[in-house]
Parts: sequence; structure tokens; C-alpha cells
Amino acid sequence: MAKLWSGRFEKSASKLLDEFNASLPFDKELYEQDIQGSIAHAKMLAKQGVLSEEEKEAIINGLQKIKEEIESGEFVWDIADEDIHMAIEKRLTQLIGDAGKKLHTARSRNDQVALDFRLYVQKQNQEFIELLKDLIATFVNIAKKTDDVVLPGMTHLQHAQPISFAYHMLAYASMFKRDIERFQSSYERNNYSPLGCAALAGTPHNIDREYTAKELGFKAPTINCLDTVSDRDFALEILFNIATMVMHISRLAEELILWSSYEFKFITISDEYATGSSIMPQKKNPDVPELLRGKTGRSYGNLVSLLTVMKGLPLAYNKDMQEDKEGVFDSVKHAKISVIILNEVLKTMKINKENMLKAAKTGHLTATDLADYLVEKVGIPFREAHFITGKAVALAEHKGKDISELTYEELKSIDERIGKDVLEYLNLINSMNARNSYGATSKEQVRKQIAYFEEFLRKA
Amino acid sequence: MAKLWSGRFEKSASKLLDEFNASLPFDKELYEQDIQGSIAHAKMLAKQGVLSEEEKEAIINGLQKIKEEIESGEFVWDIADEDIHMAIEKRLTQLIGDAGKKLHTARSRNDQVALDFRLYVQKQNQEFIELLKDLIATFVNIAKKTDDVVLPGMTHLQHAQPISFAYHMLAYASMFKRDIERFQSSYERNNYSPLGCAALAGTPHNIDREYTAKELGFKAPTINCLDTVSDRDFALEILFNIATMVMHISRLAEELILWSSYEFKFITISDEYATGSSIMPQKKNPDVPELLRGKTGRSYGNLVSLLTVMKGLPLAYNKDMQEDKEGVFDSVKHAKISVIILNEVLKTMKINKENMLKAAKTGHLTATDLADYLVEKVGIPFREAHFITGKAVALAEHKGKDISELTYEELKSIDERIGKDVLEYLNLINSMNARNSYGATSKEQVRKQIAYFEEFLRKA
Amino acid sequence: MAKLWSGRFEKSASKLLDEFNASLPFDKELYEQDIQGSIAHAKMLAKQGVLSEEEKEAIINGLQKIKEEIESGEFVWDIADEDIHMAIEKRLTQLIGDAGKKLHTARSRNDQVALDFRLYVQKQNQEFIELLKDLIATFVNIAKKTDDVVLPGMTHLQHAQPISFAYHMLAYASMFKRDIERFQSSYERNNYSPLGCAALAGTPHNIDREYTAKELGFKAPTINCLDTVSDRDFALEILFNIATMVMHISRLAEELILWSSYEFKFITISDEYATGSSIMPQKKNPDVPELLRGKTGRSYGNLVSLLTVMKGLPLAYNKDMQEDKEGVFDSVKHAKISVIILNEVLKTMKINKENMLKAAKTGHLTATDLADYLVEKVGIPFREAHFITGKAVALAEHKGKDISELTYEELKSIDERIGKDVLEYLNLINSMNARNSYGATSKEQVRKQIAYFEEFLRKA
Amino acid sequence: MAKLWSGRFEKSASKLLDEFNASLPFDKELYEQDIQGSIAHAKMLAKQGVLSEEEKEAIINGLQKIKEEIESGEFVWDIADEDIHMAIEKRLTQLIGDAGKKLHTARSRNDQVALDFRLYVQKQNQEFIELLKDLIATFVNIAKKTDDVVLPGMTHLQHAQPISFAYHMLAYASMFKRDIERFQSSYERNNYSPLGCAALAGTPHNIDREYTAKELGFKAPTINCLDTVSDRDFALEILFNIATMVMHISRLAEELILWSSYEFKFITISDEYATGSSIMPQKKNPDVPELLRGKTGRSYGNLVSLLTVMKGLPLAYNKDMQEDKEGVFDSVKHAKISVIILNEVLKTMKINKENMLKAAKTGHLTATDLADYLVEKVGIPFREAHFITGKAVALAEHKGKDISELTYEELKSIDERIGKDVLEYLNLINSMNARNSYGATSKEQVRKQIAYFEEFLRKA
Repeated sequence: MAKLWSGRFEKSASKLLDEFNASLPFDKELYEQDIQGSIAHAKMLAKQGVLSEEEKEAIINGLQKIKEEIESGEFVWDIADEDIHMAIEKRLTQLIGDAGKKLHTARSRNDQVALDFRLYVQKQNQEFIELLKDLIATFVNIAKKTDDVVLPGMTHLQHAQPISFAYHMLAYASMFKRDIERFQSSYERNNYSPLGCAALAGTPHNIDREYTAKELGFKAPTINCLDTVSDRDFALEILFNIATMVMHISRLAEELILWSSYEFKFITISDEYATGSSIMPQKKNPDVPELLRGKTGRSYGNLVSLLTVMKGLPLAYNKDMQEDKEGVFDSVKHAKISVIILNEVLKTMKINKENMLKAAKTGHLTATDLADYLVEKVGIPFREAHFITGKAVALAEHKGKDISELTYEELKSIDERIGKDVLEYLNLINSMNARNSYGATSKEQVRKQIAYFEEFLRKA
Repeated sequence: MAKLWSGRFEKSASKLLDEFNASLPFDKELYEQDIQGSIAHAKMLAKQGVLSEEEKEAIINGLQKIKEEIESGEFVWDIADEDIHMAIEKRLTQLIGDAGKKLHTARSRNDQVALDFRLYVQKQNQEFIELLKDLIATFVNIAKKTDDVVLPGMTHLQHAQPISFAYHMLAYASMFKRDIERFQSSYERNNYSPLGCAALAGTPHNIDREYTAKELGFKAPTINCLDTVSDRDFALEILFNIATMVMHISRLAEELILWSSYEFKFITISDEYATGSSIMPQKKNPDVPELLRGKTGRSYGNLVSLLTVMKGLPLAYNKDMQEDKEGVFDSVKHAKISVIILNEVLKTMKINKENMLKAAKTGHLTATDLADYLVEKVGIPFREAHFITGKAVALAEHKGKDISELTYEELKSIDERIGKDVLEYLNLINSMNARNSYGATSKEQVRKQIAYFEEFLRKA
Repeated sequence: MAKLWSGRFEKSASKLLDEFNASLPFDKELYEQDIQGSIAHAKMLAKQGVLSEEEKEAIINGLQKIKEEIESGEFVWDIADEDIHMAIEKRLTQLIGDAGKKLHTARSRNDQVALDFRLYVQKQNQEFIELLKDLIATFVNIAKKTDDVVLPGMTHLQHAQPISFAYHMLAYASMFKRDIERFQSSYERNNYSPLGCAALAGTPHNIDREYTAKELGFKAPTINCLDTVSDRDFALEILFNIATMVMHISRLAEELILWSSYEFKFITISDEYATGSSIMPQKKNPDVPELLRGKTGRSYGNLVSLLTVMKGLPLAYNKDMQEDKEGVFDSVKHAKISVIILNEVLKTMKINKENMLKAAKTGHLTATDLADYLVEKVGIPFREAHFITGKAVALAEHKGKDISELTYEELKSIDERIGKDVLEYLNLINSMNARNSYGATSKEQVRKQIAYFEEFLRKA
Repeated sequence: MAKLWSGRFEKSASKLLDEFNASLPFDKELYEQDIQGSIAHAKMLAKQGVLSEEEKEAIINGLQKIKEEIESGEFVWDIADEDIHMAIEKRLTQLIGDAGKKLHTARSRNDQVALDFRLYVQKQNQEFIELLKDLIATFVNIAKKTDDVVLPGMTHLQHAQPISFAYHMLAYASMFKRDIERFQSSYERNNYSPLGCAALAGTPHNIDREYTAKELGFKAPTINCLDTVSDRDFALEILFNIATMVMHISRLAEELILWSSYEFKFITISDEYATGSSIMPQKKNPDVPELLRGKTGRSYGNLVSLLTVMKGLPLAYNKDMQEDKEGVFDSVKHAKISVIILNEVLKTMKINKENMLKAAKTGHLTATDLADYLVEKVGIPFREAHFITGKAVALAEHKGKDISELTYEELKSIDERIGKDVLEYLNLINSMNARNSYGATSKEQVRKQIAYFEEFLRKA
């Protein structure tokens, strides 16, 4: 009997089922880890006497051949194989005969997928660390050249205090340094081998999990196999670490978009990373930062997805957990390209110092410096100083100037006691450099920060 | 100079950029809607005198040819075309020359993508309605055969009161009926045409948006173009409606998994929709329900993704919004297959009536019926009735029986006043049928419910 | 034996348990609905002969007294009562004696809480509709006064085309109209009464669910009681509808923040809704829009919370579902205040027309109008027209002007064929009004839109 | 003029605004941290000569008095004070006069709130570590007594292999150990002091951030102040760490619910942590595990909330960030009680060994052990062994037994070569203990695992 929905959808039931059940279309991404794990397993089985040396060699050669086939595109993917493990196992048996089947002694798909996925995630943890180090290097390079480029430091998107562009860039270096530390810490915490846990209870075979753990770069085997085949914490961690990193990127992206607008004009994004409009030739759109900001969506969503999948699952493996990989692959892929492209955008953007300085001269950012001057240098009580400052702001407004642009004569006209040294206080650069506490925006502190991040990059 | 990351990643900068910027790899899913929209636009332009009849015919023929090329696999996708709109536009110009370019009069990518995506979502709304009607029909069919199959109705996963399997199935029919109503209401609310809104401000050309709206099956054109190119509410709605529907599925899936366990054995899932284990031949895993339950993850995640993307975006179009489609495609695809496969699982599962009945005889589900009998039929005050019931439960426990299995003699031994008619009260079926208020589990009410859903299916 | 954690936490086990289990601390928010439901139930029980008229009167009077006690603050809340239902039931029995207990015939906490919560949500749906109508009225009022206030319409936060502020405001009216429609549609879809569903299976008592449904303003009773006590779709819907509405608010909030910055200065937020800084007297922070934007967080989070709670729950009621209310209360409370305050911010903000106009003169927004003029009025081929336009843009840049500010002489110096009527095309207002397609930014269309929303407000 | 909404909502505009803007209603939770931070700041200011010794003493005494007032309930909270910092500052000035104001030298609300919130989160990190250590101790204690209690280890909720209850408990010990490590690693990564960062740029005052950092238990001051006042990574981390921990709890809760059902009866939850039903006296609901499972909702939701808030925020402080605390407080509060109560439930539950064993005898869990026996001990080829095993399963089914319950005679009747030692292989305990690889379920391995966790608890 034709299925009710068969007219509507042009696939047969079995194809739909394959599409529903099979993980091969996405888990083939793990081919490298699957082969890596199998080679370690084969070596261990040989060491333990389960495989002969010949069998071991045949298996390793076969697996390496399969890797080449996959990478050259020769390998024939068949959805009927269901998953990457079966696809490789079947091909291995085709290539080397029954020895291929022996490889699966003391192993189950449950520990195999746990291993492959963990190896993949661990590799990504390391790659993100490297990519972020490159990114921090860019912030440091920009900072080195911009420690006296003044822009209005903002809170509430309102001009607040003069800071240097270098200081602003290093704020992002600080964020991405924490991201590195999260990837690093996740790597360490999860660096234990699932291999040998079998279905859920371990195996009666005489295996050496310590050996395969070392062989695969893990610190040790996991301590409880029931947990191991049920555990996806390592995947949740990378999803969270990516989400947080992409959130940081979204903040910088927002600033790049603002800074590229007609209203700000603080930077000019390189033509390579912006697009025009055929109708409106004057237009240049900051597509890359906009997309970077938009990538928060999938990063957050993928985290929610896996948290949802794992909620309330009884031990041990449940098929729901097959839904664990696609989100991770998606987050990893988009986040990696994001870091790389962000780095390029930063390296190639033009920093419009004059516009930043001009903006910094809006909002009387050094009004408080005048008050400080009056108190500290002239000895005027704070209340009176505040009153005099108010008059100076009013005069500046009246003259259509920023307070930092008043002349000595203009200032003196407000209060006789004001000395010529006041100009140093009102100067934006001086004001910025006066903020010289640890971690502050002064040139001296910024140089310390540069040294700090350079040291970090050397050691990380 | 070689890029810092060029050694690490084997792609050139431009390929990475293409991958980052281009939407073609996923928005080609919209080819049908893009062509449909363009045909309507061409007809309107001809009606308004912007295109000649010949130009119109050439365009329509060209677009239909492109559709065939795409569906036959001939069409050459080139990521350099960036998006589906450009890919089709370029091919159209290749096929019919400069008339192809004229098609883009009074149109922008912003309204074009808003149109294509909305047409797609509207189509999906309708398809989900049809799929869910099929699903409800299955619940009704099962209900018709199971209105006297008793199982223990549960709260807190504890036996509570006897209900029929039919009644349980119709609870799901109720849920999926609400899902249909949500898809329907979303369809109606968003059934307005974006076409002609151009970039953000409308167009100076003399167009007829009313005409294209009708041509494309919309109720009318949208009222404010700035909103229209910025609006993704229709996409959020389908994501939410899918998430809620998949949540309903997850509840049924949880029950199917429980019911398939050794402990319950209420149903047997057909071999087609379960998998075995080569090592443990006794095993039969409910993979399909587990995956159905796991699909909540992506459904929730995709909703979060788009909500996140849209947060805080200034008007009108921003490139972030390119991140709107993949999640919708993903949710739609997985939810559709889920509904179809769930339907098949339900149609093919075996209902183990005896096991359900046996379970219903655990937990003294009719203890309250005894108390009711004592109060109503014998005229014993409630407190005393409750005490006698307690003794009956104790006797049943002592005999290793359920209270519904006590004999008249056994009951009479507890209290002389108990008449033979008590057995009718203790009978599980009678107890179930006694619950005869509107919407309740009695056979009479279940039949009303069946009629209600049949009527709904006829009219929906 | 003292508990391990007893030294660390200063509460006894039982207090912790109360805190963990009891819903009273939050579900007392439902006291009004609980009393409303109980009065309807009492009337029905009397009509059906279960209660005498005297009992009914006593119950109703008792409940009304309790309502007064709660509203005056006299009522003594005791966490030992666990939930609002028990708290009111216990007090009723104190007040009127055993008749109070009879009220609970044919009712269970499961249908009682389902009823109370649904009544609450339905009331909120209606209140949001009213609040949003007030908000739309404000957009319409602003639009009436600003249909010739020009600002640069933006895409990608880049100047794109001149639009009116009225048009921009009406984009938001469109969004919030959809929000109203969602609250309305959810109200209709869920307007069915849970009362009488009892624990999960209905009741053997002779009740009239139709009667209580009408009494409480519902369309009818629900069709399947097992679904009814398990259903929280109505709560998910209001969470989603609020999340979407708050997302719309976040977009406007982002714009209000941008428009309030030194860089834009398009609006000035009233002092009532902004805060200053004691240290930096020049500062005025847009706190209210920032908080409005930040409220997306909890709105999204609360939606995710309830979706998560409901995932995979078997039928019928499970205690997990006690986690359904706090998120709804939180979203409702914050969203309501958000709409009200947003409305006030809009009504009291100053619109800086001159700054908007000045900004609109940046970016040569009418360059395309010049090209159109050359093609349509002068009959120059498009390619040449484009070239001439390019020269005009270059001249304007050279003169430090916008293209719309070039004199006739300057334009004529570029090409002799340019007539004096070109100035009308380059004029920003004219350019804006030329976009006169349905839904566009022209004054004519904006007036149609105003009429459309006024009509909507009259009828809604 | 009365506000449009004034009739509808019974609050004046100003009260609504207070409610909207003020953080005092929730941030008073931070009073202890605020006072702690102020004392450290006062000491530093005195050391640097900004405050006299007398002023310092007055400030410290005043703050300690305020702490007492708050803890005794004497303190008068006034929403007009807006936040906890102002509330304490105002009271301090009331108590000690103008010296109170001097305390705010070189400090801003931005670094003050960053400090208070971080101190709070760090304290919680430590408290979770302690609570989880208590919880792990419970798993270890249970494991010590149950290493030969057999239950059916499950995958897909289907019986798979015999495991011990001890092994199952230690799987959870493994999960919660990782949770501890996450709290620990977050604590270390964020253990830097924000104090002295002022508004966003540091301060011109001569302060000693190193000193206050040490005084407050931090490792060092933060390196970039712009980042510091914008950073909420530490809050996101605790939200994620709680979400993951609660997910683990939800898995155990699901199992406790299943195990408490009539169908499983593996455990009996203590009456203290279950509730009954007045109508159905036979019922005992696992309310606590259900609520524990339901708490995933808010844990996930609160994480999503803060991620959403932080998306796309430009530097530095924005008022949106005021939305950062309530979710953290909520997650912390509910997660803490959850861990404590879970611990009590575990300590007091009854483990029904006999039911577990009975269940383990369902599903022929030792069928593979028979095959292994035939291959290893008798020397029969695998294919034939598999065939013989199939016959044994069939015989067991026929006899209504589990394969582990077949007698030697019955087994021998299938194949003459089977020796009496086969019974050891079919025995469930033996089968379990045969799985003796590292991390497996054998008694030997479980004892190693117990020792491992005991060592961890000693050192952690």
C-alpha cells in the first residue's frame, strides 16, 4: 500500500529512514580520528597478543590506504553503512579480509564514537588556541602603533573619558586571552581516553587502556566506563567556549560597524572585507563584521541544542546522543573562519586618527581634569572648583569649542588663580596619560600591557 | 606575504571569504520561490508597461528553463555568484540577453530575499498542516480500536487511575491539533507580500504590488516597506511552532521508549523502526523514538539562534540577517521527517493489551472506587469508608492481589454491609467508564472525542 | 546526627525542603484566578445539586473575604500550605467550616492549577494587547507630525536613501501590530476551560464543564483531560510572543541609543528617562533604552526554560511542571513595564530634525535620482547617465558638499544638457516623496499608513 | 494629564520607573561583598595617605555596623537609593559624616559592581566545590556497600549487560568530579581584582591595586581596566557550570523516577522526600527528583539570558549589564538546594537489591558469556558458538527462564561438549566481574574507582 505521504514527498520510506537514522552524512567528518583510534587499538591488541604482528601491519596499512582514499575523494560513501565506523570497517575487510574484523575485539561503537568525537574536539581546542594567539598578536601589533591615538572612551555609548586606541584593542586581547585559557583548561580536563570502555561496562578481554591512552596523546584512560560512554561534557564545553568567544567577537564587530558608519568614521574597513552597491555607488557595507555579529546566533543555538539533548537522559548511551555532533561541527567551522577573517579585517583596516581625536574633543572629556587641577594645584576647595569648572564648560560651549580647546587667556578670564600649567591638564593626551594606575589607559600602562601579552604569547 | 594561518588551513583567503560571505550553498534551497517571485514580477512589469510582451515571455521561458536545469542537476552552481538571486539572474541573462537585466527594475535583493524566504515558510506551514492531519488520523484510527484497552494512567510516572489507550492517544491528537492551529494562524498572519518594497523605502517606479501579491497567493502587500525588509517574525514563528511540535513529539517518544522497555512492555515497536545488536542478539533498541526525542535539541537551538540574531538590530536590512535561513531549513527538514516517521512507528507498533491490563492491576487503582461505593451505595460516612478501604487494600496486599482482584467473599469478610454489586465498582473497565464527564476517559467520552477529531480533519 | 552541610548553611533540612518543594512563594500571584475559578466551581456544584444554596453562598462569601484579606495584606501566608490552592482552601475552611471542603468535589490540584495559570495568561494576553495599542497610538501621533522630517534611511548602518521619520516610526507600528495579532491569536486558540478535568481522567461526578467554561469567559471546555492537565502550550506561547515583542523593542532601543549618541544626535531623550554622572556632568546616559535592550536576555531565557522543562515529559502531570510559572511571571512583569516606559520615552523625547536633515545630506543619497533624471528627462542612455552622475559626485566631494547641495550652475558645468528641473530631483524631500509605491516612504503613502493604523486601533 | 495607562496599572510613573531602573531589590544580595570591598579599599587609601588612620577606622567601623544592621533586619532599604552601593554609601555618611564620602576616591560604580559580583561568584564557586564533594562522598559510601548488587546495565533503556549498582553510582561520581574541576578552573581563571579600574580608564590617583587584590584574596589585579568593567565571563562561566551540573542531576533524577516506578521498583525513595495523595492513598510521588529534573529549565534559561544580554554590546559598561545578576542568583540558589537535597535523597533511599537482581535476570544478559565460553574454553569456532548460544536462548525462553537460570543438564542437552564450568560463565555476578578492564564494572575495578574518588576527596 502506498504511504499516505508518499505522493507528497518524493522519497521512499526506506530512504527517509536512512536519512533519519544514519549519521554517516555528518560523522564522516571524523574519519581521521576514527582511523587514528583504530591504529592505536590495533597496536595494543598486538602488544597483548590478540593480533599477530602480520595482522597488525595489515590493519594499519589498510587503514592508511582508506585515509588516502577518503582524502583523494576515491572512497565510496554508502549511506547504508550508517556511520563512519561501519563505513571504514567494511572497507577494511574488503581490503584485508577477516583480519579487519578482529580489529573490533574489545571495542564497541559506544566507546569508538566517544573516542573519535573526543579526539576531534581536543584537536579543535588546540586549533582555537593557535588561532586566538594569532589574533592577540594582531591586537598587540596595532596597540604598539596606537598608544597615543586618542579616542573617546565610552560608557552607555556616550563619551566618557579619553583613552588610547591601543588600550581599547588590548581590552579585546584580554578577552581572547581568557578564551584561550578556557580552551586550554577544557583540553586538560577532558584529556582522558574512552577507548576500551566497550558498550558500557568494560570488557572481559585483556586489554591495556593505559597504552592506547598514551598512544593517542591522552593523559590516562577514563576512570568509569559507564560515565565515559554517556559523557558529552567535553562537547558542551567547546560549545560554550565558542559561544563566549563569538560573543566577544560580536562586541568588537558591533564597534567595527559603528566605527565604519558615516556618523563615526573612526575606521575604514578594507575594500576586501566590505561590499558595495551597484545602485548606490557611494555605499560601502561592513558585511564581514555584520556576519561576525550574526554568528552569535548559531553559536548560542548549538549550545542550547546539546544541553537540551542531554537533559534527563538515563545512562548509558541513548540514540538521542547521535544529535551531539552536527552542532559542534557547525560551531567549530563558523567560529574558526570568524577568527581568521576578523584577524584579516583588523590587519587591513585604516585607523582614522584625526576623526577619533575630533570626536574626543566633543563632550568636554577633560572637565574633571580642570576640577582636579583647581583642587590639587591651586588649592581651591572642591565645591568651588566644581563651580569654576561649570563656568569653563559654559564658556567653551559659548565659543563652540571643547573645554580642551580653550586658550589660557579664556581660562584665566574665568578665574585669576588659574595658571598656565592648566593647559597640560586640559590636554587630552595628558589627561589620558594621567590615568596611570595599574591596568589603566596611560602610555606607560599600555606599554606594560603590551609586554604582558607578548610574554603570554611567548609562553602559551 | 603568506597569511599567518595559511600553513594551518589549506584554503586561500578568497576561498575562506567566499565561504564566509556567500549564502548560495544554503539559499539555493529557495530556487523555486525565487523563480516563482520573478515570474510574478515580470508579469506585473509587463502589465505596467515596463516590459514588452516579448520581453515578459522571454523572461518567463528563461526562468522555467532554469528551473528545469536546477531540478535535473544540469545547473552549474558557482559560489562566486554569492546568492541564489544572482545565480539565477546571471543565468537568465546568459539565456535571454539584456531583457534579463530589466527584470530587476523596481526590485532589490532586500525585498527579493524577504519574498523568497516568506514563500518558502508559507509553503512549509501548509505542508506541516497536512502532515499533522495524517498524524492525527493515525491517533484516531488507533483510538477507535483501543477504547477498552485499559492501562494505568500515570502522574509522576506513578500509577494513578485506569484510562484507555484510546484516551491516551487522543491526548496527543489534541496537542497536534493545536500545532496545526499554530501553523495555520502563522500562515494567515504573515500572508502579505514583500515584493516591491525594494531596498528599504519603496520605489519611484510605477508598480502594482497588489497585483503581484495576488499572483503569489498573498492576501495583500505589506503596509510598510522599512519593516518588511527588516521583518523575520514569520521565520521565528515557524521555528517556535516547530519547537513546540517537536516538544510534543518528544513526550510521546519518551513514552514509546518507556513502553518498549523490559519493565513496561506495553508496546512492541516494529522491527523496521528498531535496531538490534550484533553482540547482544536479545536486544532491540527503540532508535527512532530516541532520535525523535533528541530532535528537540536542534529545534530549540535553531529558535534561540534566530532570536539571538535579531536582537538589537537597527533598521533596516543588516547582513546579520543572512544567518536567518539555515536554522529554519534544518528545523523544517528534521521536523518533517520526524512527523512522517513517528506516524509510521505508530501505525506499525504492536499494542500489548495484556501487559497494559496487568500493569493496571498494580497499585490498587480502584481503591477510591470502593470508597465511593461505600459512601454512595451503602451510605457509610466518608471517614469510615476510607478506613474500610484501607483494610481492603491491606487484605489485597496480603493475598498478593490488586484490590480489583478481590473476590466478593474476601470483600464481605471485611465488612458485612458490602453487597455483590461492589464488584462492578472495583472492575477496572467500569471504573474507567465511570469517569464520564466531558473530556474524560469513559468509552462514551472517548467516542465523542473521536467524532470531534474526525470532524476537525474533515474541515481543517 | 547533624547533616554534613548543616554547618555551612544556616537552615534546617525541613526549611530547605519547604523552599524546594513549595510553590506558594510564587504561585500566590495567582490568588485572584484561584478564587475566580473556585467561585465558578461552587456555582456549578450548586446548580448540579452537589452543594446547597447556603453552602454555595457561604463559599462565595468566604472566598471574597479571602480576596480582601490578601489584597489588604491581612492574609497570613504559611509556606507549610505549599501552594496557593491549599492556602486558600485552608483559610476557607477556617472561615466557613466543612462546607469549604465540599468545594473540592470533582476537582484536583492538577486541573485547578491548569485553570488558574491559564486564566492568568489569558488576562495578560489581553493586557498586552491594550498596552501595545497605546504604543501604536504613540507611533501614529509622532508620524503625523514628522512625515516631512527627513533622515538617512540605513541598511548595514550605512546611509542608503532618504526616508521620513514618520515612515521609520510606522515600521515599528507594523511590528507591534503583529505582536498584538499574536497575543490575540494565542488568546483565541487557548480559550478553553481546564476545570473539571480532575487529576487526569475526568471525574465520575455529575458536573457541567460547559457551565463553568462560560462562567469563566472561556469558549468551551477542553476536549481531552489527559492533555489538559499536561498542556502548557498557552504558557509557551505567551513566552514566545513576549520574546518576539521584546526583540522588536530591542531594535528600537538600539536605535534610540545610537540616535542619542554624540555622533548621531538625532534625538534627545527626556531627562526623566536618562541619568547623569556626578563625576562627568556633561554626560547623559540612555539608561532606559539600554535596559529595554537588555530585557531580551530574560525574555529569551524564560522561553528556553519552559521549553526545556517540557521536553520529554511523559503524560500526565509531573512535578517538573511546577517550574512553569516563575519564568512567565518574570517575562510578563518586565515586558509590561518595558512597553509602558518605552511609550513614555517616545512621547517625551525631542526629535532633532536639523541633525537628521544634516545627516541625510551626507552620502549623496540622491545620486541615483540624478541618474534617473538623466535617463528619464534628458533621454541619456543609462551607462552615460551613470558616468555623468559619477562626475557630479566627484564635484560635490571636491566642493565639500553633498550632491543635493550642488547649484544648477555647478551641475550644468558637468553636462550642458542638464536642465534647471534637475534640482527638484536632487532635493532630498522630493527624492523621498518620489518613492510612492504602496508601503513606501512618500508623504502620500505615509498618510495612507497612518490611516491604516488608525483604522486598526479603532477596530482592534 | 493622567497617563494613558494610569487607570489600568495602579502605580505612578515614578514608581514604575524605580521598579524598572533600580537594581537594589536584587543587588542587595551583594551587601556582604560590597562591604568587604569597601573595607579593602579604605585600608589601601589609608596606606597610600589618602585617608587618615582615624578616617579609615571610622569607615571600617561604620561598614561593620551596617553589616550588622542588614543582617539583623534593622537596615532600612529605600528603592530611591537605586543600588546596594548607594544604599550603603548613604548610610555610611549618615553614620560617620563626610569621611564616608572620601571612601569613594579612585573608585566608580563600574568597578565597584564588577568587584562585588565577582567576589560573590568566586564564593559560590567554592561553595559548589564543597557541596559536590559531600555528594561524591555519598556516591562512594553507597558504592562501598553495593559492589555486588547487580542490576541490568542499560543502553537505549534496554537491558544490555549486568553491572553493579556501585559502578552505576560511581558514574555519577565521575560526572560531579568534572563539575568540581570546572568550578575550580573558573575560580582560578577569574581570580583577578577589578578594584581600582574606576569608570573605564583607570584613575589618576595614586592607588595600589596589588594591595587590594591580595587583601580580597585575589591573585592579582586585572591587566586592562576597559575589559574589566565590561567583562562578565566569570558570570557566564558559573551559569554554564551550573547548567552542566544540573544536567547531570537531571539524568540521575530521571533514573530515580524510573527506578521508583511500579515497573522498576529498584529503589524506594524515603517518605521524607516523596509525597502522597489524599485521594489515592496507594500513591507515592517522587516529587523531589521530578523537581530536580525540572530545574534544568531555569539553569539553561539563565545561561541563555546572560549570553543574550552580552551579545553585541560595545565597550565599556552599558546599562544592559544590570541584567546580569538575577539569573546568576537564581541559578545559584536553586542549584545549591538541588545538590543538598539530592544528597539527602540518595542517603535515605532504600535500594531494592532483589528487584534489581530479578530485572537483571530478564533479557539473557549473559548470552554473550556463553558464546565466549564456547570459544575460549571448548574451542568451538565463533560462528558455531553463536548458533549454540541461540539455541540456549530459545530453550530458556521456552522454559520461561533467563539464560542464567538454565541448569547444567539443560545446557548439556543442547551440546554435549558443554562442561559444568559453564555455570560460572552464565552466573550474573561472575559475568559482571569478568569485565575487569580498567574502568570496568568488576568488583576489583570498582574498588579501584572507590579508592580513586577517596583520594580525590582527600586532595580536592
